Amino acid sequence: MIKKNILVINGPNLNLLGLREKNIYGVETLENIMDRIREEAGKIGFEVSFYQSNHEGGIIDSIHEARGKFDGIIINPGAYTHYSIAIRDAIKAVEIPTVEVHLSNVHAREEFRTKSVIAPVCMGQISGFGGGSYIAALYALREKFKNE
Amino acid sequence: MIKKNILVINGPNLNLLGLREKNIYGVETLENIMDRIREEAGKIGFEVSFYQSNHEGGIIDSIHEARGKFDGIIINPGAYTHYSIAIRDAIKAVEIPTVEVHLSNVHAREEFRTKSVIAPVCMGQISGFGGGSYIAALYALREKFKNE
Amino acid sequence: MIKKNILVINGPNLNLLGLREKNIYGVETLENIMDRIREEAGKIGFEVSFYQSNHEGGIIDSIHEARGKFDGIIINPGAYTHYSIAIRDAIKAVEIPTVEVHLSNVHAREEFRTKSVIAPVCMGQISGFGGGSYIAALYALREKFKNE
Amino acid sequence: MIKKNILVINGPNLNLLGLREKNIYGVETLENIMDRIREEAGKIGFEVSFYQSNHEGGIIDSIHEARGKFDGIIINPGAYTHYSIAIRDAIKAVEIPTVEVHLSNVHAREEFRTKSVIAPVCMGQISGFGGGSYIAALYALREKFKNE
Amino acid sequence: MIKKNILVINGPNLNLLGLREKNIYGVETLENIMDRIREEAGKIGFEVSFYQSNHEGGIIDSIHEARGKFDGIIINPGAYTHYSIAIRDAIKAVEIPTVEVHLSNVHAREEFRTKSVIAPVCMGQISGFGGGSYIAALYALREKFKNE
Amino acid sequence: MIKKNILVINGPNLNLLGLREKNIYGVETLENIMDRIREEAGKIGFEVSFYQSNHEGGIIDSIHEARGKFDGIIINPGAYTHYSIAIRDAIKAVEIPTVEVHLSNVHAREEFRTKSVIAPVCMGQISGFGGGSYIAALYALREKFKNE
Amino acid sequence: MIKKNILVINGPNLNLLGLREKNIYGVETLENIMDRIREEAGKIGFEVSFYQSNHEGGIIDSIHEARGKFDGIIINPGAYTHYSIAIRDAIKAVEIPTVEVHLSNVHAREEFRTKSVIAPVCMGQISGFGGGSYIAALYALREKFKNE
Amino acid sequence: MIKKNILVINGPNLNLLGLREKNIYGVETLENIMDRIREEAGKIGFEVSFYQSNHEGGIIDSIHEARGKFDGIIINPGAYTHYSIAIRDAIKAVEIPTVEVHLSNVHAREEFRTKSVIAPVCMGQISGFGGGSYIAALYALREKFKNE
Amino acid sequence: MIKKNILVINGPNLNLLGLREKNIYGVETLENIMDRIREEAGKIGFEVSFYQSNHEGGIIDSIHEARGKFDGIIINPGAYTHYSIAIRDAIKAVEIPTVEVHLSNVHAREEFRTKSVIAPVCMGQISGFGGGSYIAALYALREKFKNE
Amino acid sequence: MIKKNILVINGPNLNLLGLREKNIYGVETLENIMDRIREEAGKIGFEVSFYQSNHEGGIIDSIHEARGKFDGIIINPGAYTHYSIAIRDAIKAVEIPTVEVHLSNVHAREEFRTKSVIAPVCMGQISGFGGGSYIAALYALREKFKNE
Amino acid sequence: MIKKNILVINGPNLNLLGLREKNIYGVETLENIMDRIREEAGKIGFEVSFYQSNHEGGIIDSIHEARGKFDGIIINPGAYTHYSIAIRDAIKAVEIPTVEVHLSNVHAREEFRTKSVIAPVCMGQISGFGGGSYIAALYALREKFKNE
Amino acid sequence: MIKKNILVINGPNLNLLGLREKNIYGVETLENIMDRIREEAGKIGFEVSFYQSNHEGGIIDSIHEARGKFDGIIINPGAYTHYSIAIRDAIKAVEIPTVEVHLSNVHAREEFRTKSVIAPVCMGQISGFGGGSYIAALYALREKFKNE
Repeated sequence: MIKKNILVINGPNLNLLGLREKNIYGVETLENIMDRIREEAGKIGFEVSFYQSNHEGGIIDSIHEARGKFDGIIINPGAYTHYSIAIRDAIKAVEIPTVEVHLSNVHAREEFRTKSVIAPVCMGQISGFGGGSYIAALYALREKFKNE
Repeated sequence: MIKKNILVINGPNLNLLGLREKNIYGVETLENIMDRIREEAGKIGFEVSFYQSNHEGGIIDSIHEARGKFDGIIINPGAYTHYSIAIRDAIKAVEIPTVEVHLSNVHAREEFRTKSVIAPVCMGQISGFGGGSYIAALYALREKFKNE
Repeated sequence: MIKKNILVINGPNLNLLGLREKNIYGVETLENIMDRIREEAGKIGFEVSFYQSNHEGGIIDSIHEARGKFDGIIINPGAYTHYSIAIRDAIKAVEIPTVEVHLSNVHAREEFRTKSVIAPVCMGQISGFGGGSYIAALYALREKFKNE
Repeated sequence: MIKKNILVINGPNLNLLGLREKNIYGVETLENIMDRIREEAGKIGFEVSFYQSNHEGGIIDSIHEARGKFDGIIINPGAYTHYSIAIRDAIKAVEIPTVEVHLSNVHAREEFRTKSVIAPVCMGQISGFGGGSYIAALYALREKFKNE
Repeated sequence: MIKKNILVINGPNLNLLGLREKNIYGVETLENIMDRIREEAGKIGFEVSFYQSNHEGGIIDSIHEARGKFDGIIINPGAYTHYSIAIRDAIKAVEIPTVEVHLSNVHAREEFRTKSVIAPVCMGQISGFGGGSYIAALYALREKFKNE
Repeated sequence: MIKKNILVINGPNLNLLGLREKNIYGVETLENIMDRIREEAGKIGFEVSFYQSNHEGGIIDSIHEARGKFDGIIINPGAYTHYSIAIRDAIKAVEIPTVEVHLSNVHAREEFRTKSVIAPVCMGQISGFGGGSYIAALYALREKFKNE
Repeated sequence: MIKKNILVINGPNLNLLGLREKNIYGVETLENIMDRIREEAGKIGFEVSFYQSNHEGGIIDSIHEARGKFDGIIINPGAYTHYSIAIRDAIKAVEIPTVEVHLSNVHAREEFRTKSVIAPVCMGQISGFGGGSYIAALYALREKFKNE
Repeated sequence: MIKKNILVINGPNLNLLGLREKNIYGVETLENIMDRIREEAGKIGFEVSFYQSNHEGGIIDSIHEARGKFDGIIINPGAYTHYSIAIRDAIKAVEIPTVEVHLSNVHAREEFRTKSVIAPVCMGQISGFGGGSYIAALYALREKFKNE
Repeated sequence: MIKKNILVINGPNLNLLGLREKNIYGVETLENIMDRIREEAGKIGFEVSFYQSNHEGGIIDSIHEARGKFDGIIINPGAYTHYSIAIRDAIKAVEIPTVEVHLSNVHAREEFRTKSVIAPVCMGQISGFGGGSYIAALYALREKFKNE
Repeated sequence: MIKKNILVINGPNLNLLGLREKNIYGVETLENIMDRIREEAGKIGFEVSFYQSNHEGGIIDSIHEARGKFDGIIINPGAYTHYSIAIRDAIKAVEIPTVEVHLSNVHAREEFRTKSVIAPVCMGQISGFGGGSYIAALYALREKFKNE
Repeated sequence: MIKKNILVINGPNLNLLGLREKNIYGVETLENIMDRIREEAGKIGFEVSFYQSNHEGGIIDSIHEARGKFDGIIINPGAYTHYSIAIRDAIKAVEIPTVEVHLSNVHAREEFRTKSVIAPVCMGQISGFGGGSYIAALYALREKFKNE
Repeated sequence: MIKKNILVINGPNLNLLGLREKNIYGVETLENIMDRIREEAGKIGFEVSFYQSNHEGGIIDSIHEARGKFDGIIINPGAYTHYSIAIRDAIKAVEIPTVEVHLSNVHAREEFRTKSVIAPVCMGQISGFGGGSYIAALYALREKFKNE
């Protein structure tokens, strides 16, 4: 097992998860998903912290503060995915391996949701598996750390 | 453990993996990656079969033949990702849960590689983790099967 | 008369109303307009609350908090109209009937102001009548509540 | 009360209202809506006349004839909204305050319906409130006349 | 034989058929084509009526009037094919099975002729067979009625 | 002097000339311009007839009727310039030398006014000289007839 | 009756007809449709042969081989409609009258399905009538052969 | 007669007129056309000077030098029409009434020839009448000078 | 020397300057650059204040508060340059002469960085000179104040 | 003379050369051209092999097999030029100097033929010289080998 | 003080400065601005030479000749800014630090003026400060030379 | 051997060849390349003349002067490739077989370099082989002359 500290960031409106648009995002609340992540992370030696904000600036601040504290970031930027070049620049600046995740399959929705301005500076992107996107991200990071 | 049969399809040029453009695709050969997938799949109860072809028609035929035989498909369509509406229609037709994977982060490369015509009919897409993309796909499928 | 609670949200720079670009936005201050709204609302049985912020995240938070407290929202998203998919998602999530209003006729200005990313998830959009846009919105909501 | 003469113009296919595509346009017939408008207009001192035509040229003629006879126009140009530059030029020419209205929320439908070639020469645009769009337009005009 | 009443609508400039641009539209006059249609229709039990107009509004009126009188419409909208959203809405509104036909192969001509704003609300489109397009449309309708 | 019959067609809203938007279209009425054209035409042996309509279909009909009666057409299609493919097809069909004219310099106004769908089937286009555009068109036709 | 040999080519995924996406493509299998075509063809003196392949190259080969053997081709290129310039060039090269057919109304589906790269080199295109599209194509060819 | 000095500028490749691409530009040489212009100009009191150059900079210099010497400019910018913003700025700077002319109907040729970057700063544009375009320009200028 | 108060605003991620992406932004920290600005400003009689925030709303608030306190603003909006119409509107509203600066040459980087939504409402833009961009901005402002 | 093995690959429809569209591709058959290439190659010490296929996958396979066997590739990808990213990736992968050739001048034909997705990974592109394009490619390769 | 030789190049129409379009470019002549530049340059040890031409080729020649003679270039390419890739290539070729300047704020004018094809190969761009843009450029260069 | 006179034209910045951007254009000077061309030309009976200019107008003049003197032109238009419609028209006008050449592979560089406005009027285009592009052009011309 590889001991790693992982920061999981959730962007705007994800605090309402399970309460809104259940046909798209499912019935799990953010709390449920955080529990699943924590449990699965434990199995592979990861310790996870969580941060949620509806404020673009708040998310940028939290990424800056992750420097020197976390080995990896899993971020669901919500709607900011599609226009926040500022979050993109923050991720690029701190140089922590970052995985962009989405609950829904963004490639199967409105045209504007298929484009991420953030993914180009991440390790990679995982979308479409509900809470499972975060779990898959944990294993993607584990594979990366294994290969170092 | 959930017993499932998974078909892993690799598209054009992936047979040269590890032999070409190592700065983008890494040094692992397709054989190495298939071994990693088989091993990890075994841990979670999945049996995996492999198919590789440079022929669009061949890939379509293999998807058709998967009907009734496989519970899930993991497909790396290679360059066909960006224009093979025929493969898209095949996946839509057979109605087997399918995960699109990419070794490299397609969102960080040439503009034309950021667009997948296939992803909209898949469960989701995973890109950027080298061989780890396939591993993450296994776990994404496991999460899906768990929730059924 | 139909008793309803209405939240009126004003976005960035609207706090400077009447102080800036009077040829476009007129000489009324936000205070004046709020008084007109309150008075007219009173005539048709509506109680109105007001919120103004220059912060995208603040507006999202206020929309979230409106759940269960308000029967309708009138929002002038200011410049966020044209790019804040995050505010769009917030409105979609809370499922409160929402009217998008603009002081100026956005369809007669710069090309980029003719496009609203928020209007598609609102009941409708009213633009071009100065403070009168808000008054028209009150009546649009009254018509809606009548028909329920 | 401000005495004003208002012309309400309805464009192509609106004569079929309530008979067609009720999921989009509702069950009210044009007759019903005209009654509602007439009644509400009476309350605020407006006298309303109505004109409906499927002919672009007929609508242009009616706008020309409104000069000197009407204080305001409320127009639902139907499909002509999206391409009739000729109607746009007619409205611009006669210089009568004009409000563009739509029953459905045009910003939430096909891409081509989000663009109005007519709105830039109107006072403003109101869309999405069914028959209520016309009522809201009456109040928008009242606000305008008040401020003169 | 299935007894059906079919309305054949011809749009702008088709009255000049056989008199203009013979290299594109052939030498048959509209009269000749109407005779062929009538004769062929007779063989399969259809009764056909004809309407031609250069006026967009006239075509819309004729579609409205077809409600309750005709079982099918064959329409060659001529140049209106490419911009008359008003005719599109009329066809959508009356809910009579409609076939769009073209004498020439519109897909092989100027770029702007390849796009039909009307076809999306029709059963289908037939283009490129001269007068034969109308004959093919009769059989397409017969097949449809057979399957009901 | 070359004896020729010329038809001058004026499209939508040109009947309001001199009464509307004088900063763009000048103070001359259509009557004034028709007088100037008639007088100048007389000097070079041309007889001119005039037709004005706000109806697209009416303009098409008048072009059809010009066959065999007129040697040349001068047309100011007004707003139809920018979208009436039906008028374009009518001009192409009758094969009478046609000059498109505009009072204002359409190349110096809104982007959408710089594009004519009609000019490609005319002999040429003259724009920007007020009533002088029609006069210049007379001479352009004279030059053409001279060279035959 | 005109004796003619017709080749009917069906492209990718059409072998699954009736088994997949029945809401779009209907419940008839390719076998059923082939029977209907054969029967109707017999009535008008045509002999039909059938070819189906998921391979672009296979379809091209079959078109090449049709030279000198068939008087007409009816082709449903499936998804290749939208990008196979190679099939387009093959049809152009063999100079056999070819009709492009589609089961569904391609003009009413995803934007990318409205564009055919193949239709410009065919006689014409018929789409939207299910199996009836093939029947209509037979009659379109009969009309063509009649006129020769 | 109004005495005026007019400068006629011809741009690149017009020196080859009558020697090249006669199907597009006709058989008249630039000399012939200059004679026609001089003669017609004489009739209405204009004195004309001519300048031809293949050099963009040369054309700009000649426009600068026209200040204070000429009352009007007729310019055929040849291919520079479509990209020389520098010539555009020169015309705008010297504030001499300028008419842009073209021998061929630029609106009926390649897409790139339909766009003039120069026309927006001219009085107007005349195209399509061969040498007659220059003659028409003389009369357009005469009309202008008359109205001053 | 002209005594002026200047506010220098730095946007998102500029707090990490000198710590991130040194190949693009150089090794100077924001502190170093602030010292250089302060020193150079002193030489020409300017007093400078500094504000940095990762929050779009915070930057808007600071611009609002600058009214009546500062004679000029130098703003490096970081990534907000490319989409914050809200900051644009704030600058337009307060009517303080504002210079947009960038450390790197934005015109030589990703396509999306070449477009500023803010520059159109500033006096001008200076980009590409590292910390020197701010120094150049001081002199640009001095030149402006001199000319008043 | 430099001894080199060169593989000449011809894509779809080139087997019909000389038999189809002679106005575009000339009357030489593929056999004739192969003879000319073989003869000219012999003069400069090159040994040439030939491969033709209508199958995209077949072409990819042949490129893979060229590794270690050939010093250079001359490829005419036919219609695949414009969309086969899979062939592009194959050429990039095998790292054999490759020249893209075309018989016709692709830059002078339909817009879609001016774009090659393959050329960017080749040494260069030669188009427009009929069979001479292959001959020129031989000399281009000779020049390259000389400089090594 | 750092002794440096600087070449200041002014492109087309700048010789008319102060004489044309004063609302955009101000009343200073090029002479006045050259005096200001010379004086300010003297203060910081720079010697400046000036070159102005309306000829693209002349500007290219002057850039070539600057090699080995000048330490820096300040260029106002005028209208060539927007299309002269040839000047761009010249600047790239000579590798002298170059600053692009504009009198007016090009980002606030016509869309086509916001794009510079030259700026990407310069150190940076300064626009909007009238003659002050050149002064700011001097200081930008001084800052650069200081850091070497 | 076929005796032919060939003019080799080199456009802007090519005089600096071998002195600039060697990673793209190589170390050969224009002199070296001219020697190679002259030598190779001699072997096949061609006499070559050379012209280089940075002036668009100069290149046009030289093409005009080539009429009647040269049997073929090889032109490297440098940056003018991408926008000089004037050079395009000159080549079209003189009707001398012309080959466009480029040292670098323009299809593998910036997007704007992949588009040639000149190639459509040339026989063909050769790019990517350094000095070898000119050599290949000689042989392409030889093949052409052979076939005459």
